[in-house]
Amino acid sequence: MRVIAANDNVFVIRESSDTEEGGLIIPDEAQKPTNKGAIISVGKLVRDKGIQEKRIAVFNKHAGFAISVDGVEFHVLKENYIIGLI
Amino acid sequence: MRVIAANDNVFVIRESSDTEEGGLIIPDEAQKPTNKGAIISVGKLVRDKGIQEKRIAVFNKHAGFAISVDGVEFHVLKENYIIGLI
Amino acid sequence: MRVIAANDNVFVIRESSDTEEGGLIIPDEAQKPTNKGAIISVGKLVRDKGIQEKRIAVFNKHAGFAISVDGVEFHVLKENYIIGLI
Amino acid sequence: MRVIAANDNVFVIRESSDTEEGGLIIPDEAQKPTNKGAIISVGKLVRDKGIQEKRIAVFNKHAGFAISVDGVEFHVLKENYIIGLI
Amino acid sequence: MRVIAANDNVFVIRESSDTEEGGLIIPDEAQKPTNKGAIISVGKLVRDKGIQEKRIAVFNKHAGFAISVDGVEFHVLKENYIIGLI
Amino acid sequence: MRVIAANDNVFVIRESSDTEEGGLIIPDEAQKPTNKGAIISVGKLVRDKGIQEKRIAVFNKHAGFAISVDGVEFHVLKENYIIGLI
Amino acid sequence: MRVIAANDNVFVIRESSDTEEGGLIIPDEAQKPTNKGAIISVGKLVRDKGIQEKRIAVFNKHAGFAISVDGVEFHVLKENYIIGLI
Repeated sequence: MRVIAANDNVFVIRESSDTEEGGLIIPDEAQKPTNKGAIISVGKLVRDKGIQEKRIAVFNKHAGFAISVDGVEFHVLKENYIIGLI
Repeated sequence: MRVIAANDNVFVIRESSDTEEGGLIIPDEAQKPTNKGAIISVGKLVRDKGIQEKRIAVFNKHAGFAISVDGVEFHVLKENYIIGLI
Repeated sequence: MRVIAANDNVFVIRESSDTEEGGLIIPDEAQKPTNKGAIISVGKLVRDKGIQEKRIAVFNKHAGFAISVDGVEFHVLKENYIIGLI
Repeated sequence: MRVIAANDNVFVIRESSDTEEGGLIIPDEAQKPTNKGAIISVGKLVRDKGIQEKRIAVFNKHAGFAISVDGVEFHVLKENYIIGLI
Repeated sequence: MRVIAANDNVFVIRESSDTEEGGLIIPDEAQKPTNKGAIISVGKLVRDKGIQEKRIAVFNKHAGFAISVDGVEFHVLKENYIIGLI
Repeated sequence: MRVIAANDNVFVIRESSDTEEGGLIIPDEAQKPTNKGAIISVGKLVRDKGIQEKRIAVFNKHAGFAISVDGVEFHVLKENYIIGLI
Repeated sequence: MRVIAANDNVFVIRESSDTEEGGLIIPDEAQKPTNKGAIISVGKLVRDKGIQEKRIAVFNKHAGFAISVDGVEFHVLKENYIIGLI
């Protein structure tokens, strides 16, 4: 991966959400849907130093946006869209 | 629990509010309804250092949102939604 | 009292305002109505270090909100809702 | 005077504005009406250290509000409502 | 002059703008009209330390407001309304 | 190149996006379109010190604006419009 | 030149834009029109220390405003309206 995150951006590779496609999960109305993704790059201005490459970020399913650079696709999140880390 | 809170998020396990279900409590119009929850993870950017794991957070009943990560359900609060600590 | 204030919250026990019930006070139109309350807990992020337990806070009568935690009722004020101290 | 100012509040005793009652002053349309008041308490968060007890504050006539605490009436101004000092 | 400026206020004595009264100046549509005034007092919170008593401030003609204190009239400007200094 | 970036601006030379003209790329609805550009000047107030001349900036295709100075054309981006670096 | 810039203002003498009058330039729709001007004074609160007298500032053609002080005309820009320096 040649591109690195700038500013307070965090790049992640979203996990495929197979369970949704299989239709086996009945979403809980009271829950906000989240997604997980492997962190591949962390901008220099990110303040929470626990946000590091190789960890898994948990974020609101609808937060951020996808981009493609030189054929590599990944998801871009601002630091404060990250709810938790695994 | 494998997931930890990022940024200024605080993860809590909400207490079940049995009294409401039993219908025995007549809510006081003058009071804002609150909920309690055991703190299970505190983000690195939380500024009030009294907000710590194993304490109980008191918060507005309608503040924050629930998420489920790897089958574990918990409630996510921004630091400043926490009113008090027990 | 087991619950302590978080962040920039201040917990007070409001004084009962008997004079209003007795109907003896003719409110002055030019004055903003205030209430007093004994400070019982001060959040760690409160900046005015004169806001301390056992002092009496003076605040706008309509500022803040009441909560009840484990049967104890008190009033919650953000630091900057406190006008004066006695 | 037992009550002291909290935060960035300044307590003043407004000067009585006799000249207005006597009807002798023709207000100048181009001027903003001001009032003066003796400073009786200065909150700890007031930044301009020239704002001190016993000085006279000059402020916009319509700025701030009056309160009464234990029978003592005074006027409450946020620091930045004070235009000048005498 | 007994009154001094508080906070980030600057007190000036506006120059009389005779040229306007004489009708000799044709205003340039492309220019913002300015006024000049001798600085008589500078608040302690003014950050540009070049703004000093006895200098002349240049400001937007419509910025600030006039007040009269103990019979002395002057013009009040917030620091950032001052465009230049002579 | 004689002109340098001021403040938090970053000057880039946009890459020509040939692939779009050739019509061979079917845009992915889920992706935000980006553009790349060689960084030619970085303002002194840019905080992410990884944003340096000779690197390639990745940015939202619609961010910033083009200017021409002495016949040289380039694209101007505020620091926080830069998503990543190559 | 006797007047100096206050605060975060920058004074420039705009270059005459002859090329526009001659009608020889066909404006590029994709470009934001800019103007250049010799910097004659820099306010003390300007943060980019590369913005100095005798350099040429590049700015959005419609940014700032013209003033005339003691018969000298110049253009006033806030620091962050300056895009680049020559």
